[in-house]
Amino acid sequence: PSKFSKDVYQETEVPGVAVGLAWTSVGGDILFIESSASEGKGKLTLTGNLGDVMKESASTALTYIKSKATELGIDPGSFAEKDIHIHIPEGAIPKDGPSAGITMLTSLVSLFQGITVKPYLAMTGEITLRGKVLPVGGIKEKVLAAKRSGIKEIILCEKNKKNIKEIDDRYLEGLKFHYVSNMMDVLDIALEGRS
Amino acid sequence: PSKFSKDVYQETEVPGVAVGLAWTSVGGDILFIESSASEGKGKLTLTGNLGDVMKESASTALTYIKSKATELGIDPGSFAEKDIHIHIPEGAIPKDGPSAGITMLTSLVSLFQGITVKPYLAMTGEITLRGKVLPVGGIKEKVLAAKRSGIKEIILCEKNKKNIKEIDDRYLEGLKFHYVSNMMDVLDIALEGRS
Amino acid sequence: PSKFSKDVYQETEVPGVAVGLAWTSVGGDILFIESSASEGKGKLTLTGNLGDVMKESASTALTYIKSKATELGIDPGSFAEKDIHIHIPEGAIPKDGPSAGITMLTSLVSLFQGITVKPYLAMTGEITLRGKVLPVGGIKEKVLAAKRSGIKEIILCEKNKKNIKEIDDRYLEGLKFHYVSNMMDVLDIALEGRS
Amino acid sequence: PSKFSKDVYQETEVPGVAVGLAWTSVGGDILFIESSASEGKGKLTLTGNLGDVMKESASTALTYIKSKATELGIDPGSFAEKDIHIHIPEGAIPKDGPSAGITMLTSLVSLFQGITVKPYLAMTGEITLRGKVLPVGGIKEKVLAAKRSGIKEIILCEKNKKNIKEIDDRYLEGLKFHYVSNMMDVLDIALEGRS
Amino acid sequence: PSKFSKDVYQETEVPGVAVGLAWTSVGGDILFIESSASEGKGKLTLTGNLGDVMKESASTALTYIKSKATELGIDPGSFAEKDIHIHIPEGAIPKDGPSAGITMLTSLVSLFQGITVKPYLAMTGEITLRGKVLPVGGIKEKVLAAKRSGIKEIILCEKNKKNIKEIDDRYLEGLKFHYVSNMMDVLDIALEGRS
Amino acid sequence: PSKFSKDVYQETEVPGVAVGLAWTSVGGDILFIESSASEGKGKLTLTGNLGDVMKESASTALTYIKSKATELGIDPGSFAEKDIHIHIPEGAIPKDGPSAGITMLTSLVSLFQGITVKPYLAMTGEITLRGKVLPVGGIKEKVLAAKRSGIKEIILCEKNKKNIKEIDDRYLEGLKFHYVSNMMDVLDIALEGRS
Ligand SMILES: [Ca+2]
Ligand SMILES: [Ca+2]
Ligand SMILES: [Ca+2]
Ligand SMILES: [Ca+2]
Ligand SMILES: [Ca+2]
Ligand SMILES: [Ca+2]
Ligand SMILES: [Ca+2]
Ligand SMILES: [Ca+2]
Ligand SMILES: [Ca+2]
Ligand SMILES: [Ca+2]
Ligand SMILES: [Ca+2]
Ligand SMILES: [Ca+2]
Repeated sequence: PSKFSKDVYQETEVPGVAVGLAWTSVGGDILFIESSASEGKGKLTLTGNLGDVMKESASTALTYIKSKATELGIDPGSFAEKDIHIHIPEGAIPKDGPSAGITMLTSLVSLFQGITVKPYLAMTGEITLRGKVLPVGGIKEKVLAAKRSGIKEIILCEKNKKNIKEIDDRYLEGLKFHYVSNMMDVLDIALEGRS
Repeated sequence: PSKFSKDVYQETEVPGVAVGLAWTSVGGDILFIESSASEGKGKLTLTGNLGDVMKESASTALTYIKSKATELGIDPGSFAEKDIHIHIPEGAIPKDGPSAGITMLTSLVSLFQGITVKPYLAMTGEITLRGKVLPVGGIKEKVLAAKRSGIKEIILCEKNKKNIKEIDDRYLEGLKFHYVSNMMDVLDIALEGRS
Repeated sequence: PSKFSKDVYQETEVPGVAVGLAWTSVGGDILFIESSASEGKGKLTLTGNLGDVMKESASTALTYIKSKATELGIDPGSFAEKDIHIHIPEGAIPKDGPSAGITMLTSLVSLFQGITVKPYLAMTGEITLRGKVLPVGGIKEKVLAAKRSGIKEIILCEKNKKNIKEIDDRYLEGLKFHYVSNMMDVLDIALEGRS
Repeated sequence: PSKFSKDVYQETEVPGVAVGLAWTSVGGDILFIESSASEGKGKLTLTGNLGDVMKESASTALTYIKSKATELGIDPGSFAEKDIHIHIPEGAIPKDGPSAGITMLTSLVSLFQGITVKPYLAMTGEITLRGKVLPVGGIKEKVLAAKRSGIKEIILCEKNKKNIKEIDDRYLEGLKFHYVSNMMDVLDIALEGRS
Repeated sequence: PSKFSKDVYQETEVPGVAVGLAWTSVGGDILFIESSASEGKGKLTLTGNLGDVMKESASTALTYIKSKATELGIDPGSFAEKDIHIHIPEGAIPKDGPSAGITMLTSLVSLFQGITVKPYLAMTGEITLRGKVLPVGGIKEKVLAAKRSGIKEIILCEKNKKNIKEIDDRYLEGLKFHYVSNMMDVLDIALEGRS
Repeated sequence: PSKFSKDVYQETEVPGVAVGLAWTSVGGDILFIESSASEGKGKLTLTGNLGDVMKESASTALTYIKSKATELGIDPGSFAEKDIHIHIPEGAIPKDGPSAGITMLTSLVSLFQGITVKPYLAMTGEITLRGKVLPVGGIKEKVLAAKRSGIKEIILCEKNKKNIKEIDDRYLEGLKFHYVSNMMDVLDIALEGRS
């Protein structure tokens, strides 16, 4: 791996950090989504210059996790005793839209389970409360940004497969794609077999 | 059923999900309205880029259910111990207006009773606190969108019957309409005999 | 009675529903004001696309009722244990102004006493905290709308009598007017002798 | 007294109602300021289409009363167990500015002491937290409105005496003026010797 | 002393009142900053048409006092049991900026210690959380207003000394200046030896 | 050291004060970031005319400290029993952006550990929830302002090293730079060996 991709690896070597793909005013980019928990009363804090729709994704991810707590091996009683903080650097860049949903989900489950996310993996996709993954826009720009940053695997919604087919093959070299339709599939790929 | 309508079927195979009909900036569309409950203190969270009037429908639906809890077989004491979250994908599209009322009602009762909504069924109508269903606009666009999506039955307010009569018969083929004036009628059609 | 007026009758056959007269952007109209109570902590929820002044009327009506609870046969301790919700269909139409005051008062007292409002009765008037009824505007448009809707009796502020005198008699045929200056008079007319 | 002034008398025959003088968009006018208390937790509700500065006057009046509770014969422990509501009809007219201060003070003390305000009395003046009365504007318009409404006595800040001297004597006939610099003087005039 | 300066003296003869110097839209002026405490839960209320920066000064002053409570002879446990209200007449004039900081500090300490502020004394200066006094603008206008109002002593930040040197001597006659860099110095001058 | 740099030294001789570098509308400048704690319930107050992104940095710094409390020798149970206030003079100047992150972090840890920050030291850099330091803009203007103010050492993100190389050497004389990539490195330099 290049020095840059080593950076990406090290950035995610703590539980609670996942790599998303975004399409902001400065073009395609990777986003580190960071979650942290501390003793509290169930408050959710969201920082990093996030718009309302992106904040709603965080709320939706958290409700989904609560509804699947037992299945995910998380103590359902623990949510009321913790404050959760999700931060997305870089604060100077406004961020919005629903596409960070699966990354927020992965970041939170990684935190609650105490296991790190698979390295060199990025993802983008909207989430729903019943566990579906929905397609998002800006796929080409996001994939190019992922490659530039040393990412090797990307999780996308199955309905975004058609957007990958439209990209010239030479840009996709060295990238492995995972197509999913269900949020549990995302977690299987991102967290399975890790500690 | 076509592959598409199979999708619709699977999307609603968990309690708490109902299919509404909407008329947004991108035309007629079906909306999945998703409800989820978790341990809490009676907080209501609404996400999915919803306007104020649509948020008010959710509040009205919940108050109606509380006032009819015993009749609906729901423990009245349970509301204070739960946080409820209603989400409507897709977050990128702003949604507003009172027409999602009966779908929110159905989604919540499906959740509280733990039974799934009848498949291939969609609905649109405003609700009131005393249990009436009121007519809404955009019927033609909504019906065409329902048919495109594989829907087979539609619940409408009795006062919207005249809007159906104005639609050319060939567009209505394969669709069954239920006309209601009362919110209990909606639940009878959407949830009766299910588990 | 015509089929339409039968509708009006049925709409109000539950406690907590009263008929007001409004003058909105679409002209004179009748408004159903619906109140509901559920176990809670004294929260007041107001829905139906209401402006700030109309919301203040609801708050004023509730404070008045609290101050007269014993006189009205309502347990003063009950307010802290209930959440109250007032809804005015139709959500698509913005509503504002102080003229719904006496209708909100009637709706709430009907709910708390568990008795229905007199049928075919509508009303319009501003309320004060000390129990006065104040005159409001748009009387002619409101009266014509009431008649069109099958209403047979109307409560108005005594100071609005002059507005009725300016209306051509043929429009008033079949309508009975009650002129009041005090909020207790409204309740006597709307709820007396009912159960 | 004319029929009109009899009206004014009756309007204030309950504790908690005081007559202020205002200068709104529709000219000089009298305002009935109404206060009501109910079992609660110390919440202050302000209605009647009031601007921020007018709301601040209510808050300042209440803090002053709390700091002088013993002197005023009010139980200091009672504030935490009551919700207080101040309403100023007429809701359709926006009201703002600090000049309702002494009227709000009088209305609240009348309520807490359970004694009515002197009849045919109106007042206007800003209040401070340490008990001073400050001069206000629009004196001529306010005085003419008071006279038209049957008012016989007016309380003003001593520093507003010069504004009265500028008014032609024939407009002042039948009016008695009280000039004050201290908030306790206002209460002495408005509430003394009453029950 | 002239009648006017006697006024100023009397205005501050209760604990909790201090005289500040302001530069508002109507020019230089003196401001009476009034603080009052009542039984409560630690709430801070700010009135008098204050802008956000001026409100922040009040919050900063209160935190500073809490951190120095023992040193100032104030019971640290008392803050949680009191509501504090700071008011600055005159409500019709918007006020903003950080320059009221030392006056707010003085007003609050005067209140908590129960001793009055030295008469004929005014002040202006920004405060910091660690106890520094910072220079402010509008010194010439403020000093002229102080003199017009009968003020005899003025507290300024040491870094504002240069602004006094630029004022013609005849305007400074009869005025004594205290230059400070620390907030404890302000309290020594304003409250020392008083009761 | 010049008189000015002695000032800087004295300003930071209490725990809780750290020197940041900012680039505001008035050019490069040093900022004193002040933190204070008092008995409370875990509330965070932020003053000094701060924009939303700068406020988010404070929240992020505090969450990071909570998650590393044991490692930093801070009692994790203490956060729920304290209110924390961060203030940045001068209130007249609006401040925003994420670059005060490491200074806020240092200020808070200095406060909680009760040890002062190294004198003549300034810093600028964005923080993340997982402990990374990110590069920021305006480096040249900030460095020149630091030198003018008597600062001798500066902490920057490693990725800002290239911005220093672009500055003419004569402007850097007498300045020592520390390049960091991790938030713990900042604390080691700013607080190590101090008391
Ligand atoms: Ca980037
Ligand atoms: Ca993403
Ligand atoms: Ca769609
Ligand atoms: Ca719908
Ligand atoms: Ca209508
Ligand atoms: Ca009405
Ligand atoms: Ca009037
Ligand atoms: Ca007044
Ligand atoms: Ca003045
Ligand atoms: Ca000042
Ligand atoms: Ca500066
Ligand atoms: Ca900084």
